Amino acid sequence: MSLSFNTTYVFPKGFYSYASNIGIKDSTLDFAVIYSEKVCKSATMFTQNNYPGAPIIVGKDHSKNGEIQAIVINSKNSNVANGQKGIKDALETCQVLGENLGISHNLILPSSTGVIGVPLPIDKILNACKSVKQNLKEGNLDQVAQAIMTTDTKEKISFRKLKTNLGEGVIYGIAKGAGMIEPNMATMLVYILTDISVNSDLKPILKSSVDKSFHCLTIDSDTSTSDTVALLSNGLAGEIEKEIFQTALDEICIELTKKIARDGEGATKLIELKIVAAKSDLQASKIGKSILNSPLVKTAIYGGDPNWGRFVMAVGKVFDEVIPFDSLKIKIGELEVKNANKDTLSKMSEYLKSNELIFIEVSLNTGNITKTFWSCDFTEEYIKENAFYTT
Amino acid sequence: MSLSFNTTYVFPKGFYSYASNIGIKDSTLDFAVIYSEKVCKSATMFTQNNYPGAPIIVGKDHSKNGEIQAIVINSKNSNVANGQKGIKDALETCQVLGENLGISHNLILPSSTGVIGVPLPIDKILNACKSVKQNLKEGNLDQVAQAIMTTDTKEKISFRKLKTNLGEGVIYGIAKGAGMIEPNMATMLVYILTDISVNSDLKPILKSSVDKSFHCLTIDSDTSTSDTVALLSNGLAGEIEKEIFQTALDEICIELTKKIARDGEGATKLIELKIVAAKSDLQASKIGKSILNSPLVKTAIYGGDPNWGRFVMAVGKVFDEVIPFDSLKIKIGELEVKNANKDTLSKMSEYLKSNELIFIEVSLNTGNITKTFWSCDFTEEYIKENAFYTT
Repeated sequence: MSLSFNTTYVFPKGFYSYASNIGIKDSTLDFAVIYSEKVCKSATMFTQNNYPGAPIIVGKDHSKNGEIQAIVINSKNSNVANGQKGIKDALETCQVLGENLGISHNLILPSSTGVIGVPLPIDKILNACKSVKQNLKEGNLDQVAQAIMTTDTKEKISFRKLKTNLGEGVIYGIAKGAGMIEPNMATMLVYILTDISVNSDLKPILKSSVDKSFHCLTIDSDTSTSDTVALLSNGLAGEIEKEIFQTALDEICIELTKKIARDGEGATKLIELKIVAAKSDLQASKIGKSILNSPLVKTAIYGGDPNWGRFVMAVGKVFDEVIPFDSLKIKIGELEVKNANKDTLSKMSEYLKSNELIFIEVSLNTGNITKTFWSCDFTEEYIKENAFYTT
Repeated sequence: MSLSFNTTYVFPKGFYSYASNIGIKDSTLDFAVIYSEKVCKSATMFTQNNYPGAPIIVGKDHSKNGEIQAIVINSKNSNVANGQKGIKDALETCQVLGENLGISHNLILPSSTGVIGVPLPIDKILNACKSVKQNLKEGNLDQVAQAIMTTDTKEKISFRKLKTNLGEGVIYGIAKGAGMIEPNMATMLVYILTDISVNSDLKPILKSSVDKSFHCLTIDSDTSTSDTVALLSNGLAGEIEKEIFQTALDEICIELTKKIARDGEGATKLIELKIVAAKSDLQASKIGKSILNSPLVKTAIYGGDPNWGRFVMAVGKVFDEVIPFDSLKIKIGELEVKNANKDTLSKMSEYLKSNELIFIEVSLNTGNITKTFWSCDFTEEYIKENAFYTT
């Protein structure tokens, strides 16, 4: 079906990019532009937070017709809670970049990530926008993956190469994680670029992948004001069947989700939780999120505490989804742990302590839905990063 | 209206108690009985967790007629998730204690707090029940407050002395906090004992007080399987008007709530959050809880980070309560912090760093409801206590 290449980067055709430091805060990469030589069909999804950032407001408008040709991103400042000035800044960024690239500002998706409530250093950004075109490099998307990082410790990339009617094409996804930096709000940004087209609306395809991946991710239960997922297809490499595209996109989104969870602030472990035998997707989601948002579950996993009672508590506090206690099954790794004896408890502790990837399966016995969720453990380092590494 | 005495303990008439160590886990107090010489009118409220402990199941049944004469409590084991055996153990405890005290087992409320899923050491408990009567002491409730502690660092007591038609009486409340110990689940236990009667149903009186106090408390968003609040009135000191009783009970419940918040695991600060100008109690609760359950808000308060953007995020993630950004006001201490300048931010940081009691006011401008909430900050010590101090 789809192949993944881990050793070399393969970029989709017709995408150019530029990543640089423009001194928003320090000397790391903080500004990036992605440009497609051809207007892309696009699908976008944004944060549900009631106070979305200015770039989200502008980006919703610019992407509403399903056409995008460029993305402009800065890190170190989220341009959130800056009122009309914030919106004016985001618009002006698109206008000046549009002039430089020779395209309509309506075809540009703006994104910002970083501290909330600090005015954007708009002069630096507009200056940078004026000289983008001459600096664009073909592909180069691994550099963009670096430029959008905040507290992420690694860039997050996932791609698939697929056969098309014209030869072969690439779906290339980059993400920044739910990390915080200094006084900043976590923001998840995901851009998926492809030269492959599908003869179908991209929106439901993207939503289907996101529902199986990013919507099943929680680091700390706090919903950012800047979350964005954008899929851009320029079709230069030809067409493919929708099902094959969907499968590859699912795989890429899940891979990026795991990379974000694994790189959660202070995280030492990636947790993969499978809710099985649920009666509905919603029931699985409510219980899955309750478990993975429980500080008691996440500290137990961190410390290797074989405290299965905390999982019971976390299932039981979903008041409107009553799972009979006798039906509930909890597996940690290969171990059934509910009412376990001392020997099993000690094996559970050993499993938690000696693995970086923790598999948990919670069976509800109310139906036949299976759904997987991801998170990380909860450590002192999370507290330190968010209490002390500040403005 | 009501007076509080902080220097000496004043007990309600006709209440006797016994607190001891029976070796459930270590050598600290772990077993207690409260007995009233006269059957009490009672009102009780229990956890909403779908997996309530065995004592909760038995206690609901025993308290359903609104009459209780004794309470039996053990710490260090919650008797939760122990199936039919757990229920049998809780019932047998009441039966053996009832025989010893010469009262029906139906008049006894059982409580257990501690680790989940470990069988109760029932022989030790039944043995202890057989010799309670000879050991009862008049009053002595401060000892009981100690015996119910788990990770609490202090006993939690609040009382009021009130004039009655026969002279004067006392409402005396004790609580154990939402702390965890070793592999244990947080459990909140609250017992309020009084020799004062009111010519009115106690249930709505208790519910009214709890809605203003314990229901406005969150330590870590995890709902215990053992939460219990019980109000017992034996009427020996005479009667009082309902409104006066209600006011004193409100004060006691709020005082205990603050003591629990202040003594939350790893806490260094007590947070008092007032939501003002809300359109409804429900709106205030949803937004108040969202703020006080946000790890980002609580770590910012811990570290003195003047990151008001996190409060905005926490209000905005209550997706179904849209508060226009321009209407939202956030006060930390006396400082208006939304879009604050550098000077105000530095004062905010100073306020957070130099105070143990942190006042926050969030104004929604959607109505005229005011509601107060309590919590504590979120520290490395919380992580350590719940990750490493285990079985």
